[in-house]
Amino acid sequence: MEHPQRRRRATVHDVAVEAGVSRGTVSRLLNGQRYVSDEARQAIEAAIVKVGFVPNRAARSLVMRRSQAIGLIVHEPHSLFVEDPNIGSILLGANETLSEADYQMATLIADSARDIARLGNYLSGGLIDGVIIVSAREGDAITRAVTRLDIPAAYVGHPRDIGDAAYVAIDNRSAAAAITTRLRETGRSRIGMIAAALDRDSGADRLAGFTDALGETFDPSLVESVPLYSYGDGQAGMRALLARHPDIDGVFASSDAVAAGAMDILQAAGRRIPADVGVVGFDDSSWAMRCDPPLSTVRQPAGDLGRAAAAAVLRQVEGAPAPGGGTVLDCPVVWRSSA
Amino acid sequence: MEHPQRRRRATVHDVAVEAGVSRGTVSRLLNGQRYVSDEARQAIEAAIVKVGFVPNRAARSLVMRRSQAIGLIVHEPHSLFVEDPNIGSILLGANETLSEADYQMATLIADSARDIARLGNYLSGGLIDGVIIVSAREGDAITRAVTRLDIPAAYVGHPRDIGDAAYVAIDNRSAAAAITTRLRETGRSRIGMIAAALDRDSGADRLAGFTDALGETFDPSLVESVPLYSYGDGQAGMRALLARHPDIDGVFASSDAVAAGAMDILQAAGRRIPADVGVVGFDDSSWAMRCDPPLSTVRQPAGDLGRAAAAAVLRQVEGAPAPGGGTVLDCPVVWRSSA
Repeated sequence: MEHPQRRRRATVHDVAVEAGVSRGTVSRLLNGQRYVSDEARQAIEAAIVKVGFVPNRAARSLVMRRSQAIGLIVHEPHSLFVEDPNIGSILLGANETLSEADYQMATLIADSARDIARLGNYLSGGLIDGVIIVSAREGDAITRAVTRLDIPAAYVGHPRDIGDAAYVAIDNRSAAAAITTRLRETGRSRIGMIAAALDRDSGADRLAGFTDALGETFDPSLVESVPLYSYGDGQAGMRALLARHPDIDGVFASSDAVAAGAMDILQAAGRRIPADVGVVGFDDSSWAMRCDPPLSTVRQPAGDLGRAAAAAVLRQVEGAPAPGGGTVLDCPVVWRSSA
Repeated sequence: MEHPQRRRRATVHDVAVEAGVSRGTVSRLLNGQRYVSDEARQAIEAAIVKVGFVPNRAARSLVMRRSQAIGLIVHEPHSLFVEDPNIGSILLGANETLSEADYQMATLIADSARDIARLGNYLSGGLIDGVIIVSAREGDAITRAVTRLDIPAAYVGHPRDIGDAAYVAIDNRSAAAAITTRLRETGRSRIGMIAAALDRDSGADRLAGFTDALGETFDPSLVESVPLYSYGDGQAGMRALLARHPDIDGVFASSDAVAAGAMDILQAAGRRIPADVGVVGFDDSSWAMRCDPPLSTVRQPAGDLGRAAAAAVLRQVEGAPAPGGGTVLDCPVVWRSSA
């Protein structure tokens, strides 16, 4: 943050000091339940303008009581919200922790620019006490809105531009390097990658880990970039790789759903897995066990990510200073029979 | 409703009439942004008590502005929320319609009694303008809370005890009878049912349709009741039916996820599908195409259910009288190769 002091929003306290009245008097005016003298009202109204206090519902809820609700923002295409069991597991983990603390979780899906604009209004309305943000991109309008409103927040994942906000993440780069290395050690020499979601830190880091592991043998023509961590994009990516490199003998798919799509295309093209081509994924979601043969992958602790992000938001809501930096959870390789 | 007039909550208008002041004066007092004379304040405060007006956030939001948010309540075990693509499709359909009308959808999952109590507080807080309720049971505490608070509401499904509230449903009974009849016409004579969720109108109606179709040949020992529309309960139900009736030659599973679990158990027990046992499901969710062989089922228009429920809530939020009765959508049989 270049100007951390600018992020602080004017409070009822600032208004009271400026107006020369008690904080309680300001609260009463905002609250509307007790009489406030005309003089005090005029002083408070002038002070509100002077200090830039925003007497919206968010501010009023600070005065009155909290909403006891935390938003969980999923910035993904709607279809992926349904298809990706990983998002579901993050959501359930977060809900578990919030529920124990008697907070209501409200899940908010954002896809289009219109969704994001509406979400900005919603966030500024004091309808929630804090937010957990799943799968933000760098330069995300949601991140800008959350930063501007100074709402208690925790990110799942670690976009580079969230400043000193709390986050809970995994080391995507090291994990991707580890599973690529393991795949290489099975004797594969023409290993490709279906690299999804390069606009997200997770997607970019998984590609970086892949190139780390291959070192000088890395061949960019063996990487196919696709937009989403989805089954359909896995199919599309595999078709493209097979067309360019019919002799491909290993594939790192950047999610399990992507791997499932890739496996179906490989098998339809007559390739045996793992005899002809070894395939590995990332997530260890329910897709991994549904694959035939069962998928070798990286176990992402999705439930724990949700729980830890919820705990980080609750700490801020309950008045603890925002923690500097984030938490990075382990994600081990799980070796099954697809490679 | 026995006493429909009792459901109406006292409004700002009632307070204004009782106090002998304008509605604007009441709004200003509640709002706290303009001066209100001491006399008017006292009269309004007395009127608030007399008419039973609740000056909570819900009421204030009526005076000020709406939250522009609609809750979508899913009353299911958390795990099912992730596993059931049908719920996801309802959710996305509702979100589409709400998004077009510039309403924010907030998804609220309720599982335990504690969740429901917390949800009641949330609903009474004026944080949302209306609710869509998915998979309510009869006697559901959520239904009681929504009715008591008189929040604009629409149900997906049709529990018997929602009074004259809006609902959007399918004719589960007729559809279940249609697919059971079709299964019978393939020459099956020992047809069982894995009957999930009998505490929901959908589950009870699917069982009723099954018995309708079998008429005098109905054998209660060929029905296995299980709690949830889940893959795991499909496995459990099929194990029980196979143990009682090793010669079973047809199965109606009351959802596609249940059918997928049943098929895996049948195949593990050496039964060929459809040669030895014909299996049919209900939903036509993504589970149906994942089954091997692909599942014959009933197509539930889940997205349309969500869209129609959202439209019904928005009509109420925007001031139209609550519609009497509900909307019933078609759900045709889709015949593939599992039976």
